[in-house]
Amino acid sequence: MQTPWEYRYANRTKRMGSSVIRELLKLTEQPDIISFAGGLPAPEVFPVQQFQEACNIVLQTIGAQALQYSTTEGLFPLREMIARHTGRYSVTVDPDNILITSGSQQALDFIGRVFINQGDHIVVESPTYLGALQAWNAYGAQYISVRSDEHGMIVDELETALRIGPKFIYVLPNFQNPTGTTLSLDRRHQLVELADRYGVPIIEDDPYGQLRYEGEHLPSVVMIDSQHQSDNGHTYSGNVIYMSTFSKLLAPGLRLAWVIAPQEVIRKLVQAKQAADLHTSTFNQAVAFEVSKNGFLDEHVKFICQVYKERRDVMLETMEEVFPTEVRWTRPDGGMFLWGILPEWMDAAEALKTAIERKVAFVPGRAFHPTGGGDNTMRINFSFSNPNDIREGITRLGILFKELVAKHK
Amino acid sequence: MQTPWEYRYANRTKRMGSSVIRELLKLTEQPDIISFAGGLPAPEVFPVQQFQEACNIVLQTIGAQALQYSTTEGLFPLREMIARHTGRYSVTVDPDNILITSGSQQALDFIGRVFINQGDHIVVESPTYLGALQAWNAYGAQYISVRSDEHGMIVDELETALRIGPKFIYVLPNFQNPTGTTLSLDRRHQLVELADRYGVPIIEDDPYGQLRYEGEHLPSVVMIDSQHQSDNGHTYSGNVIYMSTFSKLLAPGLRLAWVIAPQEVIRKLVQAKQAADLHTSTFNQAVAFEVSKNGFLDEHVKFICQVYKERRDVMLETMEEVFPTEVRWTRPDGGMFLWGILPEWMDAAEALKTAIERKVAFVPGRAFHPTGGGDNTMRINFSFSNPNDIREGITRLGILFKELVAKHK
Repeated sequence: MQTPWEYRYANRTKRMGSSVIRELLKLTEQPDIISFAGGLPAPEVFPVQQFQEACNIVLQTIGAQALQYSTTEGLFPLREMIARHTGRYSVTVDPDNILITSGSQQALDFIGRVFINQGDHIVVESPTYLGALQAWNAYGAQYISVRSDEHGMIVDELETALRIGPKFIYVLPNFQNPTGTTLSLDRRHQLVELADRYGVPIIEDDPYGQLRYEGEHLPSVVMIDSQHQSDNGHTYSGNVIYMSTFSKLLAPGLRLAWVIAPQEVIRKLVQAKQAADLHTSTFNQAVAFEVSKNGFLDEHVKFICQVYKERRDVMLETMEEVFPTEVRWTRPDGGMFLWGILPEWMDAAEALKTAIERKVAFVPGRAFHPTGGGDNTMRINFSFSNPNDIREGITRLGILFKELVAKHK
Repeated sequence: MQTPWEYRYANRTKRMGSSVIRELLKLTEQPDIISFAGGLPAPEVFPVQQFQEACNIVLQTIGAQALQYSTTEGLFPLREMIARHTGRYSVTVDPDNILITSGSQQALDFIGRVFINQGDHIVVESPTYLGALQAWNAYGAQYISVRSDEHGMIVDELETALRIGPKFIYVLPNFQNPTGTTLSLDRRHQLVELADRYGVPIIEDDPYGQLRYEGEHLPSVVMIDSQHQSDNGHTYSGNVIYMSTFSKLLAPGLRLAWVIAPQEVIRKLVQAKQAADLHTSTFNQAVAFEVSKNGFLDEHVKFICQVYKERRDVMLETMEEVFPTEVRWTRPDGGMFLWGILPEWMDAAEALKTAIERKVAFVPGRAFHPTGGGDNTMRINFSFSNPNDIREGITRLGILFKELVAKHK
């Protein structure tokens, strides 16, 4: 069918390519494949029963209100709860410092909309979260990559990047997607000091922070910056925009996340949201509030951590047993992913083809590198598959990698 | 609090001003005001009971799936239902011609993202839907206004506009927001023929089409275009992108709408959605499908029409009684709004100030005119307030307008 539309696409559509991962996920959706490719929470941890109770309560008590249009900023009780929670674990913020978004992806999009002019430089870790690149590519962002190791971004290399004059620094300090690594406490301080010295603000993306399976919680970058800025140290300094989400704590199908930012930035983000989708589903916000209140979320997070810790442990143990010595991998303290580093000569995308034939999948790491490289890397998810499938899938990968190594010798 | 962010806004934020209406709605949110300013459905018509049943069924049968991530295009059963519905009343489309969006506002935003380069011309009715202007302003659209009268866009004036070379024509043929007028059948044919002659495609925005309180349903523009393009006339021609929503049929708090477009355009819109928010809430889609299936929606629409028809009738009757002869207004056959035209010398925004003091509100018409004018016009909503409030509020407005007329003489 020929239509007049195809000659009318805007120039920005050339930068808008489809997500490699989402296209890949379609390939791995065959029911008999063991997929470590997605970034899905385990459906077994969704609190279905609690949702059912919450839906009934919301519809019985504030039904008409929950089904009506609501304010762009988000439901006040939900923002108040998030503010309270943030004050307890991090910095003191006002509900007016919070915008509810339809998932973190929307927060990334709005940040692009409000801050990125075509050609602006953004400092990112390499590798970094693909969804951020996808959101900001549409606005014509250019990336300055700072390498990372097992302690996160190599902050020693940040200063060179800051001298280029970037719009902001984007960092995922906890159990990063894709590598699973955590930015060390020293580096967090170093990051805040450098950013302050150059006057460059920070976006802290923290979807997994509460999903820690060992070690102590580290103070967030937003908290360290606030301490750095003032002696009392507990009031939000405004230099860091902080993002988190209900997707990993409750359920991603709700599409509920939040941004913490200075009020003047929230106002701009609200304008972006008015034009983009008016507001996030009133009903979902009311249900998430109902499910979360009275401390349920804290208890539930313990349960998720227990399930994911077991899966991570099974995966790490199996890798130890079956992967050839030529393959290395990270050992995350939390989150949902670990990162595999194949021998330099091995191409992860090529290996994936054979892996899919053998009914196991992962994501080749190349797409996570905004300025190239990483052809021998891969992201492996450990939250979605059950322990038996993890053992079986990793064993299949181990056999494959050993074959490839043997063939190469 | 001074932060480094305020010096970093992207240029496009200058075009992103806050919605006049949403700011105004805050003023009119005092509980004792009778507001005809919003565009809210009556909460009394929300099928709360059916939602409760649907939530329970969805969570009991496909709970984990409904809470999980899902495809960007939207749930297949929902798209299939919409395709079936569209085939029954309009043209034959495939589920792959459909994208589920988080409200119609998001469809407008994605259309801007995919089609509008800065400076592109878009043909709109004047007055037109404010949400479309707000969505497309962010992309730097320029507007070519075509005037409208009680039969919708004055299509005789369209040809001049088409010779400027616009990207597309945007039209709301049924019970338009803000005027409440319906594009006549003759003009629909004329619109399709002119668009075809100049090769300019059409966006048909139809949120209220099913809410008709008198007269016969008119064929949609997409249907007339399909008949115009081929003899069999029932297969979607692809020249018209058609949008509609569950907001007015079920509940706006769900944020659920859909776009019908050629598959190649859907692919671009899907790329836009991947970067913007991944997908629309899985749960809400599943619940909307569960509520709508088995013919409930058809029955429910009859109920909504009955309630809104009464409110429209009460409003029109009261206006007839209490408005001075200097004021004119439209008599919509459906939808949620009517349009008031004050004497040329009367400023609706000025009148609103006094009206708010007297605890009644409407929206001054100026903002709906993309190229200026309309200072003496106003949008009046009749779906939200109950008949008693409508009688009381319109009476207050009648007194006010009579006073202003008397003072002017």
